[in-house]
Amino acid sequence: MLHELFTPSVQHWLDIVGIFVFAISGALLAVRKNFDVFGIAVFAEVTALGGGLFRDMVIGAIPPAAFTDLGYFLTPLLAAALVFFLHPEVERIQGAVNVFDAAGLGLFCVTGTTKAYEHGLGLTASAVMGLATAVGGGVLRDVLANEVPSLVRWDRDLYAVPAIIGATLVVLCIKFDMLNAGTSAVAAFIAVVLRLLAMRYGWRAPRAWNRRSRAASTDE
Amino acid sequence: MLHELFTPSVQHWLDIVGIFVFAISGALLAVRKNFDVFGIAVFAEVTALGGGLFRDMVIGAIPPAAFTDLGYFLTPLLAAALVFFLHPEVERIQGAVNVFDAAGLGLFCVTGTTKAYEHGLGLTASAVMGLATAVGGGVLRDVLANEVPSLVRWDRDLYAVPAIIGATLVVLCIKFDMLNAGTSAVAAFIAVVLRLLAMRYGWRAPRAWNRRSRAASTDE
Amino acid sequence: MLHELFTPSVQHWLDIVGIFVFAISGALLAVRKNFDVFGIAVFAEVTALGGGLFRDMVIGAIPPAAFTDLGYFLTPLLAAALVFFLHPEVERIQGAVNVFDAAGLGLFCVTGTTKAYEHGLGLTASAVMGLATAVGGGVLRDVLANEVPSLVRWDRDLYAVPAIIGATLVVLCIKFDMLNAGTSAVAAFIAVVLRLLAMRYGWRAPRAWNRRSRAASTDE
Repeated sequence: MLHELFTPSVQHWLDIVGIFVFAISGALLAVRKNFDVFGIAVFAEVTALGGGLFRDMVIGAIPPAAFTDLGYFLTPLLAAALVFFLHPEVERIQGAVNVFDAAGLGLFCVTGTTKAYEHGLGLTASAVMGLATAVGGGVLRDVLANEVPSLVRWDRDLYAVPAIIGATLVVLCIKFDMLNAGTSAVAAFIAVVLRLLAMRYGWRAPRAWNRRSRAASTDE
Repeated sequence: MLHELFTPSVQHWLDIVGIFVFAISGALLAVRKNFDVFGIAVFAEVTALGGGLFRDMVIGAIPPAAFTDLGYFLTPLLAAALVFFLHPEVERIQGAVNVFDAAGLGLFCVTGTTKAYEHGLGLTASAVMGLATAVGGGVLRDVLANEVPSLVRWDRDLYAVPAIIGATLVVLCIKFDMLNAGTSAVAAFIAVVLRLLAMRYGWRAPRAWNRRSRAASTDE
Repeated sequence: MLHELFTPSVQHWLDIVGIFVFAISGALLAVRKNFDVFGIAVFAEVTALGGGLFRDMVIGAIPPAAFTDLGYFLTPLLAAALVFFLHPEVERIQGAVNVFDAAGLGLFCVTGTTKAYEHGLGLTASAVMGLATAVGGGVLRDVLANEVPSLVRWDRDLYAVPAIIGATLVVLCIKFDMLNAGTSAVAAFIAVVLRLLAMRYGWRAPRAWNRRSRAASTDE
């Protein structure tokens, strides 16, 4: 069975790690926005659990894992507390945070795709759901902070593509009956490495052609 | 049965047309906002499928149609590709886009109301759900773009009223057992025409009385 | 049974009161933002029903109460009509509105927690859901108005803490098998009083330590 891909405890700990690093990124944004301690906690929770919560509501995994597993709820609070007391130190290791965030991205796109397929979605829909799981928390974080989501801004390094590729690799493995712990790990690893390379070399996605048209220039 | 109102294939193609024109409007906003190619695709998908996704999650149609019908997912990508390569040309036919958008509005308020009623909601709730289906994608689009939703701005032409009237006509037809393909088409047609007239003649909704009060002026 | 805590009709009327006062706060924001009559109605509905709608979708209470009880839907429209015609008068009693809003906060955190527990969530998850029910509508209102949610801003008086305490009291009562109409009322009352005291004395939550660090100052 697909859900035996990872042993439950390995799966659980990988999830917790992904939740933790996403929570750190949410809490740091809250500090930069000058929010209070509750804002920091809210942003940690929303960033870490938002993508999975959306996925579970769409696929009908009710109640969502975020509300049935106490560790999923407490981990972001731990991250928020760390950032609250130590944020200059956390900032200083921003590079490390980015690496962990990439790890969360790679992990969530793989586990999200797998969980969606287990709940009966088709292959393409499962990949879309995996992508939504990986990027959903960040989008919610940015919307709550009253900012345009990084996901859609052209001046940010590629974020969606590594997750799309990771999710696509998973559905290809499912299609050819090759999905197991090893191939899942490879898919996650490739997504992580692509994200790290995108950050290292500043890879960006193109904007629409003919930017000099009247329409395009009105908002600039 | 209500779901036999339209033959499945007619219903499906009408839905696809509505999705396509809403996706065009989302993609154009993304281009104007200077987002990259993924932003354009995300905005096309969210605008086209957001209203129906919300409806399906509320009425318990899980997994939502957006994730079970591949055509629903691919159509916005096609619209995004068209806008990406041809946006000055698409802009030039803005008038045509508005007509199609009105068509989507009229169609979605009718099919949304019908689907909600089929899933057991009451008549009033079904009409509200039809309205939410018709306007939901646009609201999500504006929130993601970090703008105040057009829906609630007084300086935009009437958008909700045509959808409210279309949805109300549908529930009246249901109440008097007169809902069929013909009356559904009439309801959608009336909604579309009202929207086109609102745009043509700049119909707007009133703001609260006594705008010159202290409270009202503080934000201006 | 927990759902017999309040007699159905008492529970229902308490809910309606909470919905009404939240709707007033949403409609007033819409007037201040210069939205039209539909914006006022939309903000009244979203503020009043958003928290409960989110809760019902998460716990699987489908279709949500907001769509099955006509009173839940019509009450915000009544509030919107009042604000539309009388907003200077409503403004003048802003103090009274704040008291009612505090009443809604206290009530919703208690009923939200109770309903979540009835639907099988654990104690901690139920308390979180109660908090989300109490603050969710206000967050949605602020996001739609394109503002940073009051909930997370450090320059607003404590809002989450009273709801957290109210929800915590409810789960403690559940844990020790002491939940009844009386203890529920006490929990709601304590939450309301704490919120009123927070407004009266300007209680605020702390921001992260070391605000003078490089990271914190970049956005100021």
